[in-house]
Amino acid sequence: MTERPAISPTRQEDFPEWYQQVIAAADLAENSEVRGCMIIKPWGYAIWERMQRELDRRIKAAGHRNAYFPLFIPLSFLEKEAEHVEGFAKECAVVTHHRLEATEGRLVPGAPLAEPLVVRPTSETIIGAAFARWIQSYRDLPLRINQWANVVRWELRPRLFLRTSEFLWQEGHTAHQTAAEAEAEALRMLRLYEGFLREMLALPAIAGEKTPGERFPGAVRTLTLEALVQDRKAIQAGTSHFLGQNFARANGITFLSPEGMREHVWTTSWGVSTRLVGTLIMAHSDDNGLVLPPRVAPCQIVLLPLIRREEERTAIEEACARLAAELAERSYAGEPLRVEIDARPSAGGAKNWEWVKKGVPLRVEIGPREVAAGTLSIGRRDRPPRERLSQSVRQFVAEVEGILTQMQEGYWDRAVAFQKSHTRRIASREEFLEFFTPRDAERPEIHGGFAEIPWSGDAALEEKIREEQKVTIRCIPLDQEPAPGTCPFSGKPGKYRVLFGKAY
Amino acid sequence: MTERPAISPTRQEDFPEWYQQVIAAADLAENSEVRGCMIIKPWGYAIWERMQRELDRRIKAAGHRNAYFPLFIPLSFLEKEAEHVEGFAKECAVVTHHRLEATEGRLVPGAPLAEPLVVRPTSETIIGAAFARWIQSYRDLPLRINQWANVVRWELRPRLFLRTSEFLWQEGHTAHQTAAEAEAEALRMLRLYEGFLREMLALPAIAGEKTPGERFPGAVRTLTLEALVQDRKAIQAGTSHFLGQNFARANGITFLSPEGMREHVWTTSWGVSTRLVGTLIMAHSDDNGLVLPPRVAPCQIVLLPLIRREEERTAIEEACARLAAELAERSYAGEPLRVEIDARPSAGGAKNWEWVKKGVPLRVEIGPREVAAGTLSIGRRDRPPRERLSQSVRQFVAEVEGILTQMQEGYWDRAVAFQKSHTRRIASREEFLEFFTPRDAERPEIHGGFAEIPWSGDAALEEKIREEQKVTIRCIPLDQEPAPGTCPFSGKPGKYRVLFGKAY
Repeated sequence: MTERPAISPTRQEDFPEWYQQVIAAADLAENSEVRGCMIIKPWGYAIWERMQRELDRRIKAAGHRNAYFPLFIPLSFLEKEAEHVEGFAKECAVVTHHRLEATEGRLVPGAPLAEPLVVRPTSETIIGAAFARWIQSYRDLPLRINQWANVVRWELRPRLFLRTSEFLWQEGHTAHQTAAEAEAEALRMLRLYEGFLREMLALPAIAGEKTPGERFPGAVRTLTLEALVQDRKAIQAGTSHFLGQNFARANGITFLSPEGMREHVWTTSWGVSTRLVGTLIMAHSDDNGLVLPPRVAPCQIVLLPLIRREEERTAIEEACARLAAELAERSYAGEPLRVEIDARPSAGGAKNWEWVKKGVPLRVEIGPREVAAGTLSIGRRDRPPRERLSQSVRQFVAEVEGILTQMQEGYWDRAVAFQKSHTRRIASREEFLEFFTPRDAERPEIHGGFAEIPWSGDAALEEKIREEQKVTIRCIPLDQEPAPGTCPFSGKPGKYRVLFGKAY
Repeated sequence: MTERPAISPTRQEDFPEWYQQVIAAADLAENSEVRGCMIIKPWGYAIWERMQRELDRRIKAAGHRNAYFPLFIPLSFLEKEAEHVEGFAKECAVVTHHRLEATEGRLVPGAPLAEPLVVRPTSETIIGAAFARWIQSYRDLPLRINQWANVVRWELRPRLFLRTSEFLWQEGHTAHQTAAEAEAEALRMLRLYEGFLREMLALPAIAGEKTPGERFPGAVRTLTLEALVQDRKAIQAGTSHFLGQNFARANGITFLSPEGMREHVWTTSWGVSTRLVGTLIMAHSDDNGLVLPPRVAPCQIVLLPLIRREEERTAIEEACARLAAELAERSYAGEPLRVEIDARPSAGGAKNWEWVKKGVPLRVEIGPREVAAGTLSIGRRDRPPRERLSQSVRQFVAEVEGILTQMQEGYWDRAVAFQKSHTRRIASREEFLEFFTPRDAERPEIHGGFAEIPWSGDAALEEKIREEQKVTIRCIPLDQEPAPGTCPFSGKPGKYRVLFGKAY
């Protein structure tokens, strides 16, 4: 008997709609009345908080200190770097007034500002102005600052987590004495993100460099981590930019070198955002809802007392409380286990399904039978939702860390296998076109992925393929083999291999 | 010999300027190019993070869950509650456009919004709209949500931390079935803040209720915590509002009661902000700079290697590393000790003074003499900056938790004594006027504080005193004795005792 999965439509039936339904079923977020601005609901925010806390720890350990810079950027600041302003002008929210006034019984903007303010789409310019004050000598370098903040980039086609007008992120900004040191820093932070994605989110991503057309506005080099999600599209999961001296010149950030010369610093910036939550959903979740790797799950084990008769209540509640206390003493991945008891009254399996859809790794049911036998009925999120494992309390407590480790590794292995099986080395134009053309109109999701081809570095050709095939170079992978071969489009010798893909 | 203190002017010489100089000397924050918006520098932000982390823990333990709501609020939302919009209209930043366009080589706001958006000054209205969707039945209540966010209230006379156009805060929002339950929640959260201020910041504050004229716009009752700082002025350190059904009606937040009736919920909101950092500075710091109670100090112990000759380096650095490792194993107030080694090269006492000004509780110097003797030279921030205690390494490690406890308690005792000595029960009009009139024009800071008087509850009289004396009722303390006595201004029987003070 095949049961109807909890999420409708399924991934195969309609991936974009499945994504929305997983978010709704797991109660992660919703659209607000302000176009493009989402409300991150408690379960979704708790996942973001897990990411934040761990990333913050890693960024601090890498030598960066947190600070906070203004939400507003004077228009004139944004204008200082020509490419930068061009890149962001079309998506800036602009503050023009600083009070409201009543006119004919209606409120209208009053008191215009002398200079309009832009709500930060990113903070290179305002942080650059501060760096210009803070940096005097080579002794002030390197300067490594990180900020957790909200930013606004006006979106006409928003999608929860992946593309919202307001989003939350961290943005790191550093300044260095030399180009080489700044480039190394940009790479170091990309690798830090890569490790975070791997260890916390069980998310393999290809570390690479963007082609000039896909660079961050104002950057000399943009490094990226490209993740492949279940509909074979690529999502940029993190970026790190080597900004050269562009923002240093725009903001006048100079230092006195050990030789007594005044020079411009070399800067970097790098960030990840709430987009990671969307990436996580699209990478791991299934037709029964959200799937959370244990390390990022706000709750790793939920205890579900099954009380059908009042006289059973005390014994079951006591068994739950005892188990919760025992589990709280144990740890996984260096942190105390995160355990919740869901004591709400519920008929039958409703609560169990709720936690399946929310992606909690382990569900532990305790009813009169379990209390009598000293056992537990355990549901794992990586197994079919109705499957139960019966274990003694002692055995479960002893093995729980191992089970979570196994699940975390299982999600990683599955994601790596998926990425590998949908990455193809392609040698001919025909094969390329076929790779990105659905073979079965009914199942458009079974084609595509990353197409790896030798590339001669031709920007016009890149643009032509983008227009005709709607696929783009996601990145030039950092880890390259020698002798890339011949570019199947230009027939020229490839400079390197690139990954093409459809992008979110 | 009296030494010139590190901060100039001193508190006595010019308190407002001393405050600015402490912030500069401890490198906590600075003004940005955007009027009223500050930059919180790493040391200042680290203090805020300590507050955040501990408060977040307490708020979660009290049953609230974090979420995130949009930065922007449609103008029409703000208009729903008449008193609310009136209270905030004069200080709203208004977004009117969503892109920039080039006109005659200059960027100007393009693409006007159909409806202007206000940058949130507080989030009752946008969160209320979400609550209206989320709450259907009494089973959905109570709903307890907290948000960490930035808010904007345009300031014409900004002052770092205390009054800035953009500030960081948490805002809690809850909905309940009954008025009594909501009122109890508002009080519970005020008491939570009170405990946080006491235990973490060593800050005594008077818990009380605001008079109607001082209420939050739209609130039925506003509860407050009023702290007295060293210039005898009061600072509102936290507030908690019982909002009645005002926002429930404005937003249509209703629930089906157990009896099957559709009713409006009762709501509360409560918050503390980066203003607490300013309050902390004004309450504890001295003429040598910032003073941090150990529990809120980002670094509790700084180790200062004193290397004057290269051949001493290895032994001193090893001694520092050993001590840091030993201290890292120990805890204070339930958390691992926060220890830093300041290994920067420095001539003489410059580094030591830097940490004095930054308020780090313990400075531990290790030079060749200490290494040879197995001792440490310890400077405490609650003792004169040149005073040193010599202890063996073993003794210091064994006693450090006790020393920090003693310092934390010492700051609390001092702040309580200060508050008590500047709170006076006043029975006559003359005494009241004298209390708030500087006796010595050269030393205006030696007068004033909290004047406690019986009060008949007359709003017109309150306004008159405010205009004539520039003092206001800070609060009606929650803890009242019976029989308040006669109001010295109206001659009527007092309903309760109130605290008058000058306010930030």
